[in-house]
Amino acid sequence: MSHASRRARLAAELPDHGATGILVTWPVNVRYLTGLSSSNAAVLVDSSGHAVLATDSRYIETARRRCPDIELVENRDVAGVLAARAAGSGGGLLVEADHMPVSVFTALGGAERVTPVSGLVESVRRVKDEGEIESLRRACAITDEAFSLVIGRIRPGVTEREIARWLEFRMMELGAQKPAFDTIIASGPNGSIPHHSPSDRPIESGDLVTMDFGALFDGYHADMTRTVAVGEPADWQRDLYELVRQAQQAGRHAVRPGATAREVDAAARDLIAEAGHSEHFGHGLGHGVGLEIHELPFLGPDKTGRLEDRVPITVEPGVYLPGRGGVRIEDTLVTRDDAPELLTLTTKELLVL
Amino acid sequence: MSHASRRARLAAELPDHGATGILVTWPVNVRYLTGLSSSNAAVLVDSSGHAVLATDSRYIETARRRCPDIELVENRDVAGVLAARAAGSGGGLLVEADHMPVSVFTALGGAERVTPVSGLVESVRRVKDEGEIESLRRACAITDEAFSLVIGRIRPGVTEREIARWLEFRMMELGAQKPAFDTIIASGPNGSIPHHSPSDRPIESGDLVTMDFGALFDGYHADMTRTVAVGEPADWQRDLYELVRQAQQAGRHAVRPGATAREVDAAARDLIAEAGHSEHFGHGLGHGVGLEIHELPFLGPDKTGRLEDRVPITVEPGVYLPGRGGVRIEDTLVTRDDAPELLTLTTKELLVL
Repeated sequence: MSHASRRARLAAELPDHGATGILVTWPVNVRYLTGLSSSNAAVLVDSSGHAVLATDSRYIETARRRCPDIELVENRDVAGVLAARAAGSGGGLLVEADHMPVSVFTALGGAERVTPVSGLVESVRRVKDEGEIESLRRACAITDEAFSLVIGRIRPGVTEREIARWLEFRMMELGAQKPAFDTIIASGPNGSIPHHSPSDRPIESGDLVTMDFGALFDGYHADMTRTVAVGEPADWQRDLYELVRQAQQAGRHAVRPGATAREVDAAARDLIAEAGHSEHFGHGLGHGVGLEIHELPFLGPDKTGRLEDRVPITVEPGVYLPGRGGVRIEDTLVTRDDAPELLTLTTKELLVL
Repeated sequence: MSHASRRARLAAELPDHGATGILVTWPVNVRYLTGLSSSNAAVLVDSSGHAVLATDSRYIETARRRCPDIELVENRDVAGVLAARAAGSGGGLLVEADHMPVSVFTALGGAERVTPVSGLVESVRRVKDEGEIESLRRACAITDEAFSLVIGRIRPGVTEREIARWLEFRMMELGAQKPAFDTIIASGPNGSIPHHSPSDRPIESGDLVTMDFGALFDGYHADMTRTVAVGEPADWQRDLYELVRQAQQAGRHAVRPGATAREVDAAARDLIAEAGHSEHFGHGLGHGVGLEIHELPFLGPDKTGRLEDRVPITVEPGVYLPGRGGVRIEDTLVTRDDAPELLTLTTKELLVL
């Protein structure tokens, strides 16, 4: 799908909001609509799908090359120059409520001149085109392969930080632009912290080790978590792993076009609650991935909306026992008409190293 | 300096703004004031320096360990819960105008309930404590060492992308958390693009190669640029290098507490202008570094303010000749009472490889 057709999908949403244009300033959304990656660019899209892209001297040459079908304006005040342009054309102008800082909003004249709207471009971004899915598939393949190359080196004495570095090195060697997010390696008692940063703690025999990492490829973010056992696991560790494995499987099986965010979440969460661990699973079941590592849609007990076809999403239940450790298992998959397409293919059997 | 004394410095600024509290929501600023790195946290600091930190279940355990001296609140709506708390105590509440999105601002009640202010925590962050400078010193040492380990491999036939990967690998091996920013490797004619992304272009004999990179260590960002010659340089390349080297030296020598941003910039820029290249140096002379790669203060012809003691800053003049190539030389240094302390120690003599 071309960038022009993405802009057309966005333009089709404008009348519902009583607007004739939208000023998009969030870099990820600008990239999605135009192909230009820049720390200072904005695009004005009107209800006919016509676009004007503003950026400064650092990026204008790249914009000329990448966006030959878009009208360009060179100006450092990218929001101001496009808002002035929109004002000339009359009609309501939307701005991005979740991204525009108060200072820019005020400079544009505030609520009397522009109308903040939440998540409009993000909502268009939920359903991916096949080109986007192919980029994500490659990001996930790099992630899988890095895992397979590193797993043999995990043993007592190596540190969380070393494992993180090995995974990141391998991903880069395999073609990743960089890690899709800060790698999480949580061993032993650290496993009870869902977002633990890799430390100098050496792995010990008897640890569960949770690895949450992914590759960034062509702007798209892979996201995978596996928990492995170092040394023969205790019964409670095997039981915990099996519970999370079953919950993750149930969650994956609930992923289909038409399913609500809440029912997919519940498919996994109910199993964990039945096992008496509801208070040990404090986060949502998953999130969309794409040009951002966390994007619409979100799966959780308090989330609304239904999945559509071609929506990449993670399924990542976890159980965290304070002071003892934890297990999380996460895949990236894509909704398809029949059954979800799994993009991260690493085994979910408990690996005992 | 402890996080508490940072909060005390911020608290001391509040009366000047007619406020009794500030709600800090930007993750870098939250980290600076509390030590907690989180994608969803906020801290309320009142004019006595008392702080309340809000974060969600994913980060609360880390917050308990890292921030034992701060009152904690577990709530996903980190801004909302703290604003409600502040409202109970009476008095004006500041919010971060350059970071708070319109949607959060509106949810808090808008300008009738809170007062947007620009750059207040950033301004406190300009002057670093010795612990911060030590982290930055180590980030710069890693950067220097990675350069020394990679320089011998640069020869005709290797690509820009390979050089970038080598530098990044070495930095990670040497203890960097990750690269401080996207590495720039610009060879031959690409050298005329200040922010060139590494491409598959192979280095050719006769190229100048500009390498702009740095390590992230303990949250602090090193920033260094060197330009080297591959094969015997032409006269114009030697002359260009020598001009930039002298301009960079003049800029460094102008760095001292009390100097204005404009006069430090001018010390380097005037030499480049006298050589007839003013239009080939289109960016500012430098920027602060710390928890962000670009932060206050900024050095440039249109910048205001004076340097203070213990301010880490870059000095990075460049001359860019469209279609031909360019030279940039950049150090990270710290203002000191007597003379600046240089943190990036790699030679600035022209290396001919």
